[in-house]
Amino acid sequence: MNLKIAIQGVAGSNHHQVALDYFGSKITLVECLSFDALVQALLSQKADQAVMAIENSIAGSIIPNYALVHQHQIAITGEHYQSIRHHIMASAGQKMEQIEEVHSHPMALLQCKDFLGQYPHLKLVEAADTALVAQQIAEKGLSQVAAIAPPMAAQMYGLEVLREDVQTIQNNATRFIALQLRDQLELEATKQGEINKASLRFITDHKRGSLATVLNVMSDCHLNLTKIQSLPVIETPWKYAFFVDVTFEEYRHFEKAHALLTIMTEHFQVLGEYTNALKS
Amino acid sequence: MNLKIAIQGVAGSNHHQVALDYFGSKITLVECLSFDALVQALLSQKADQAVMAIENSIAGSIIPNYALVHQHQIAITGEHYQSIRHHIMASAGQKMEQIEEVHSHPMALLQCKDFLGQYPHLKLVEAADTALVAQQIAEKGLSQVAAIAPPMAAQMYGLEVLREDVQTIQNNATRFIALQLRDQLELEATKQGEINKASLRFITDHKRGSLATVLNVMSDCHLNLTKIQSLPVIETPWKYAFFVDVTFEEYRHFEKAHALLTIMTEHFQVLGEYTNALKS
Repeated sequence: MNLKIAIQGVAGSNHHQVALDYFGSKITLVECLSFDALVQALLSQKADQAVMAIENSIAGSIIPNYALVHQHQIAITGEHYQSIRHHIMASAGQKMEQIEEVHSHPMALLQCKDFLGQYPHLKLVEAADTALVAQQIAEKGLSQVAAIAPPMAAQMYGLEVLREDVQTIQNNATRFIALQLRDQLELEATKQGEINKASLRFITDHKRGSLATVLNVMSDCHLNLTKIQSLPVIETPWKYAFFVDVTFEEYRHFEKAHALLTIMTEHFQVLGEYTNALKS
Repeated sequence: MNLKIAIQGVAGSNHHQVALDYFGSKITLVECLSFDALVQALLSQKADQAVMAIENSIAGSIIPNYALVHQHQIAITGEHYQSIRHHIMASAGQKMEQIEEVHSHPMALLQCKDFLGQYPHLKLVEAADTALVAQQIAEKGLSQVAAIAPPMAAQMYGLEVLREDVQTIQNNATRFIALQLRDQLELEATKQGEINKASLRFITDHKRGSLATVLNVMSDCHLNLTKIQSLPVIETPWKYAFFVDVTFEEYRHFEKAHALLTIMTEHFQVLGEYTNALKS
């Protein structure tokens, strides 16, 4: 039976591409039109696992997604990096000169700001998903309207690519995480793979140097910090929680740090333990 | 002569309210429909100073704004915290039951998710600015359409408030920064006010513990960390820069840390020195 994978967006989206690259082609897509819906698909067991964008090299972390992971009984089981490509696509026969509106996700429009700046007459319209716009242009046979969407969407919906790679930053890596209900984690199975990265959340008190003390412990335990982010604690403005990613060579080093940090910090939480997708 | 203050959005927006609260009522507004345009207004000297949202207690930092500050010759000269209130407003005589569309900024729609969830038939339409939507409803005398916008927008454009405070989190503080061209900073004048907070940016190498070492120096110099954020270095995915806010009691402590960190880190930059708006 195919694994049911929840993605944000519809078939042809970046999330779809990542699901194929990460889980292989034998999957059944569960299309979700928001990240909230994606988490609900896991909680209601409509999906076995999910793929979720978590940060990119332009805009940084997608903070509300960190909150979704931390607030629900779901765990990060892996990560995948994808270089995001944006093409401009429209119904067959349309030329760039005929286009009057460009529809896409706000983040995609932002990422193509320099290109779009060359066409100041274009009306930019924000949409819920890049591939969804491509699908709608194809279904309705729209003219004078183009989508900014991934290469896969053009193939999938039979649209013509008017311009390739219109993103401003060519090297736009986005990090995706794989998610699963905590109840369904097969711990033994997970631990058989190489666990050399973990995502953590904790709260420290406001004393000067308390974060430095935590980072010293991590360093002493041979953990390498790959990401840190302070975040206001909701309902308590300006009290900060920390989201931290660490990599390590030996799992026992992580276990030692885990034990120490549980004592040293408030609400210490392991959001997931998984295999580092980047070679160091 | 009135001080010309650039804001994101139009009169009646949260930025307008903050400009009045921070700079007083004797200002001339320079309305900008994007944060890019706001920075351009400073660079072209159309505005003397600017007010910019930088983080809120729900979504965290507005990362692209950090990039704007760091990439241009502008400095942070102050900060202001504002508790964001969202009202639902429409043309006079409209009732909540008659509303079919709600227009607002995507962030405002997100912040009112729970309230809007009670009206699943409502079509949510994303717009560039909260107050701009209120203005358009008033000018066009639209019916069946409501805006989510700040209280001030209802007064300013003569709209009727249908529901007050529809934000999900009642305690939604947003942090704004005041900005000025670096060339125009009157250093002496600035330093006369109490300087007890600074915003910094630096890059560290990837060695284990290098961030801990930096934070140890800060702690040794009696600096208190109020915010930390790692951010990918654009065009070099997964190499991280750090944005850090620190508070201190004595300026000489900050000067000492400044001297040490300039040697210890790459591209050390003081984005601004100013007065902490929060009592500790």
